[in-house]
This record gives sequence, structure tokens and C-alpha cells, in this order.
Amino acid sequence: MPTTTAPSAGAPPTKGLEGVVAATSSICFIDGDKGILAYRGIDIHELAQHSTFEEVCYLLWFGKLPTSKELTDFKGQLAAERKLHPDIIKLLKSFPTSTPPMEVLRTAVSALSMYDPDAAKNDHDANIRKSIRITSQMAMIVASFDRIRKGKQVVEPDKSLTHTGNFLLQLNGEKPSPTADKALDVALILHADHELNASTFAARVIAATLSDMHSCITGAIGALKGPLHGGANEEVMKMLFAIDKAGEDPVEHVKKMVAEKKKISGFGHRVYHTEDPRATHLRRMSKDLGTKDGKPKWYEMSEKIEKYINAEKKLNANVDFYSASTYTTLGIDIDLFTPIFGVSRVSGWAAHVIEQHDDNRLIRPRADYVGPKWPEKYVPIAERG
Amino acid sequence: MPTTTAPSAGAPPTKGLEGVVAATSSICFIDGDKGILAYRGIDIHELAQHSTFEEVCYLLWFGKLPTSKELTDFKGQLAAERKLHPDIIKLLKSFPTSTPPMEVLRTAVSALSMYDPDAAKNDHDANIRKSIRITSQMAMIVASFDRIRKGKQVVEPDKSLTHTGNFLLQLNGEKPSPTADKALDVALILHADHELNASTFAARVIAATLSDMHSCITGAIGALKGPLHGGANEEVMKMLFAIDKAGEDPVEHVKKMVAEKKKISGFGHRVYHTEDPRATHLRRMSKDLGTKDGKPKWYEMSEKIEKYINAEKKLNANVDFYSASTYTTLGIDIDLFTPIFGVSRVSGWAAHVIEQHDDNRLIRPRADYVGPKWPEKYVPIAERG
Repeated sequence: MPTTTAPSAGAPPTKGLEGVVAATSSICFIDGDKGILAYRGIDIHELAQHSTFEEVCYLLWFGKLPTSKELTDFKGQLAAERKLHPDIIKLLKSFPTSTPPMEVLRTAVSALSMYDPDAAKNDHDANIRKSIRITSQMAMIVASFDRIRKGKQVVEPDKSLTHTGNFLLQLNGEKPSPTADKALDVALILHADHELNASTFAARVIAATLSDMHSCITGAIGALKGPLHGGANEEVMKMLFAIDKAGEDPVEHVKKMVAEKKKISGFGHRVYHTEDPRATHLRRMSKDLGTKDGKPKWYEMSEKIEKYINAEKKLNANVDFYSASTYTTLGIDIDLFTPIFGVSRVSGWAAHVIEQHDDNRLIRPRADYVGPKWPEKYVPIAERG
Repeated sequence: MPTTTAPSAGAPPTKGLEGVVAATSSICFIDGDKGILAYRGIDIHELAQHSTFEEVCYLLWFGKLPTSKELTDFKGQLAAERKLHPDIIKLLKSFPTSTPPMEVLRTAVSALSMYDPDAAKNDHDANIRKSIRITSQMAMIVASFDRIRKGKQVVEPDKSLTHTGNFLLQLNGEKPSPTADKALDVALILHADHELNASTFAARVIAATLSDMHSCITGAIGALKGPLHGGANEEVMKMLFAIDKAGEDPVEHVKKMVAEKKKISGFGHRVYHTEDPRATHLRRMSKDLGTKDGKPKWYEMSEKIEKYINAEKKLNANVDFYSASTYTTLGIDIDLFTPIFGVSRVSGWAAHVIEQHDDNRLIRPRADYVGPKWPEKYVPIAERG
């Protein structure tokens, strides 16, 4: 985990705080050179194969794997919060149906605080209760608004299902197949946390003023919305759709993009210099789902593009590349990709807010000032010509 | 502007990024040792005495003072955006009247994007148009919700008034006196920008994912809401109210607080090691308003406390200390102090978002990992005891 030295007085800053250590944390370990990602020390490959999204939430928030009883209780608490205040449903119905779902999510999560009895409390236990509530309710907001905008009934939650199973039920109106359920659950595990990525860092900057959990999550949703962060898998899928529509050869299409110096989304990562360990699992799920669904098209296109870019540009697929074909094979609309990223990442955001509040200091860096030299004269308006 | 060196690999980070340079900027110059604050190089004392809030917005967004014609045009543009979509008014009316105004502001500003034709555009000109709109509309949201929660009519905006004059009209239902208008306008000038304070830094972190202006401002409002940032002048006023209610001597009260090691809000600043240059003007306004209103009580109490803390603790009053008595003398409710800070600071947030988008790089620092060592074993649930 190499870090560089930030500049001293007057020197130009490391742009984008690249390599600068901004916080101490015990949540997420990344070794970008070796391609290691671990939550609370446990390798992401273990978690992707053996864990569930609920267990990962527990691990992130409590710092250890739950016992059997603890997990049962915890799942019960998450399921018990599967309820949206009627005013939140009304709110979702009041939004223009054409609103991008990330704007809906940002606004509705902000409004959740109005109905949360712990809204103003920042102690550890209140933060855990709010993490549970917001995690349950964000999934419901994404699914419910998708139903509303399509003129369909909002689906009642089923408290007997897993978090992922209930989300897919509320989204599609029917219980998911075990393959679909598992595939999305693994995707949620893989996206749950990633150290000080931009949205998590935004959440911590907000938390460090001792603002509340809803403010932090709302800000993080706003950051995730950006195309340099959560939006990348949408771009991947748009490319695949464009290739499919034109009936082009995927490699020829990408060759053209490279020649035109266009950015190919889904490749490379500021932190990883090897394969993104999350890509390994998403590649496998994209393949499995495609095979079982009898619709291997998106996987096959993706694989060809990956091979070419890997060979030509020495760039590795990142978490976004195969999540695009995975989600599309699951029948999920393209503009729900980033909201679903949020439905997962809220677990990590919440863990970081809890950690920040438990040992807080205001995050307040400085700027390297390069503007007009003080004291610039205040010229009276009559003399400004 | 002394900056320290950020840690290299493995070293514990500078907590809260204190002294670490996080961006290059030409908006705001602060010299904390000499007590200098300047927007685009122009000293805050000049601006407080000679400028207006509208002119300061222009200065922050365009990087120079406007000519007479430019200022007239610009004021016209701000006034023309003094309109809230009927659905936003409906939204404000749908919120529980007990909702803290900062939660209302955060939610309503997030919702504004749904009705903004430039919501998804991040180019420089679209950002300017959104800055104008959001600045006009944030003031209207704060004033309108205050009317709604008090069971009063929402006041129609008056496009012939200044930004500050219209805000006070929409808040109180009558045009302000010239003294009140001037006092609040100066307060808005003083709060407009302050380099990479926590809310502005949050806005830039969000902007750097190439997310949109509404996401950035919404996140910034969430950060400002924290008691270590925007909430401090509320705390000052709560203390003054408590002293007044108990009929205590202000100095005796504060002595007791010091003895009990309680934090006295409104003193000291991470960046300034001398008097906060903004405090100078707020002290004067608090005094002027108190004298002209025949209600010098809050000013006089504040002055006694400042003298004591200054002598005993060697701490200087900051921007929050005299804004408390100023706002209360203006008849503004205590829970509107932070929203009004936002009504001003949005100008700085917008300037920083524009600057970030104009020369962007993702802001993505690293964490110093101190958690369980990888690879921690994934113990199967049956074996967890």
C-alpha cells in the first residue's frame, strides 16, 4: 500500500490526494500491487464464496463475523426495518417519473431522517440502528420508485426473505430464482466497501463535522452518482448495447474507440495495479448467469473486449466491467446499476461513519492558493469602466 | 499559510488532514497568522464595507468584480430565478412541521434538480446557471419553510429587492429596515467562502467524481449541519439564552463552564491564530443593531464573555460568536442560523464546484489500515461457537 508524501508549504498538491493518507481505519484493507481486498482482514474471495450480504454488513459494522444466533437476530432486525413511512411512498409518487433514480435516491434518503427517531443522535448504538434502517430502506426506495415510474404497484416487502431476495421481489414482483438471488447477493458483497473511495471519503468528511448519518449517506449518494465513480458500469453497458445494435464485432468497435482516444469504461483502477479481485467473481457470475439463462451474449462480448484491452493496453477489468453484463442478464435496467451500487455500498459508508464518529476530528485540509495576490484593490464600481 | 507534510507509507496520518494541501485554488486566500481573509485577492474588510452579497457572488464565480452593467445584469438573473416550482412548495408543505430546517434544506435542494433543465450538465456555463438558480432558491426554501411551519402564508418574492432584502421579506412578511438589510447582507458577505472548510471540501470531493452541482450542494449542506461546522453559533446563542433565563452574570457563567471543562462555542479556529477577521464586522453589527433597536442586551453579554475568554484562555472570537447576537437582534429563530449560513456559503460552494469541474481529478485518498491482519480466517458459521 504505497503512499506518497503530501506537499509542504507552497508546493503544488498531489492532485486528487493520490496516495495521501487521510484517515486511520480498521475496516478495509487493500493491497493494490498484489490485488488484495479484505473486509476486517477477511479476503474478499472467501466472502464472495461463503458469505452473505447480511453477514458482510454485520462484519463491517461490528468488526467480526457473527455467531449463528447473532446472525439470526441481525437478519431479523434488518427485516423488521423493511418498512417505508407512508409519507416516503407519497414522496416517491410525487417525483416526476422521468427523474434519474440516483436523484430520487439522494432526495428520499435525505427525507428518511424526518421519520427516524434516532435522526439527531450520533452515539454508537444509534448509528448502528440507523445503519440497519437506512440499509433496509434504501433497497426499498430503489425498487419502489422503479415500480412507480413504470406505472406498477409498489410490492409489499416479504420479511421472510433475505435482503437481496426481498429487493428482487420488490423490484420484479416475483421471487428471484436461486441463481439470480445468489448472483446479486455476491455483487452486493463485492461492492460493500472499498476503503476511502470518493463516496466513502465524502461521507467521512461530512461525518467529521459531527453531522448525522442521513447527511453522510445523502452526500455519499451524490458522490457515487458521478460518472468517475458509480457511473462507470452504465457506460460499459451503453457500449455493449451500441455494439449489439450496430451488429459490430466487439473487438473492432473497441479498436476504433482506442484509435479515437476514447475512454473505455470498466478498465484500470487508481488503486489496483493488477486484476481487481472483485472482477474475478463478477466475470464468473456473468458467465454462469449467461449460460443458465441461455443468453450468453453479453458475457461473450465482454470477454472478447477484455482480452483485447488486456493485451493491447495492459489494462485489467475492474469491478464495473463485468457487473454491467451481470446486471443486464439479471434483467435490471441500466439506470439502476448505480443505485444498486449504492444499495450495497451503504454498508461500507455506514461503517466508516460509525468509525469516524467513534474517534472524531474535523477533516479540514488547506488549499494551495494561486489566485490574485492579496491585497488586490477594491475598485469602486463607478471607476470600473 | 503554513502547511505540514502528510505522512508517507505506514506513518500515522495527520488527523483531519490538518495543514495538508488538498487542492489548488484561486478563490479564497487565508493567512491564519496575520488574520487575513480575501476573496479573489480582495480583502474581506474592503468587501464587508463596500460590497454587496450579489457582487460577492459575481466575484466568486467570475473571478473579478463586475462592471456596473454586468452587476445590473447579474442581479437581474438572480432575481429572475426567484421562483420555486409549485412541486417544491408542495414538498415543503408535506414535511412534518417539526423537521429541523437543515434537514428540510438538504432534502429540498436535492429535489430542485428534478426541475432544473441543466441538472445533468456539468459544463462551465451550465454550472454558472445552476449556481444562480440554487443561490436564489435556497434563500426562498429557508424563508418559505419557516412560514409554513408557523402556519403562515408563503410570501411572494419581490424581484425589485436585493437578494438579502427579498429573503427578509419572504421570511418576515415585510420589507426590512435599511439597518437590518445591511446587517444581514454583510453577514452573508462574511460567510460566503472560507477556502477548504469541511462543507466546501465535501462539495469538491463530490464534484470530483464529475457528479452534478445539486449533489455537491446537497452534500455540503449535510456537512454544514454538523455542530463542529455550521452549528456553532446556535450553541453560542443557547448559552446566552441560558444566562439570560437564569439571570446570571455572563462572566460567572462562563467561569463555571471553564472550570467544568465545557467547550465555549464561538472561540478559536483551526486556521486563525489571531482574530478571525470576520468577527470584527459581526461585533460591530451586533453593537450597531443592539443600539439602534434599543436591545443591546445580547451584544453586551457577548462583549463581557469575549473579554474574559480572551484574557483567560487567550482565545479569539470567531465568526460564530457575534453572528449569534446579530441574528437574534434581527429577530431570526435560532434554528435558522445554520440554514442562513448555508444561504450565504452556497456562493462559495458553487465557486469551488465550478473550479473543480473546470480542471478535475478524482479525489481519492488512502487510509492507514490498522485492522485485523490479512488473511484473517473465514471461520464457517457452524464453527463460530
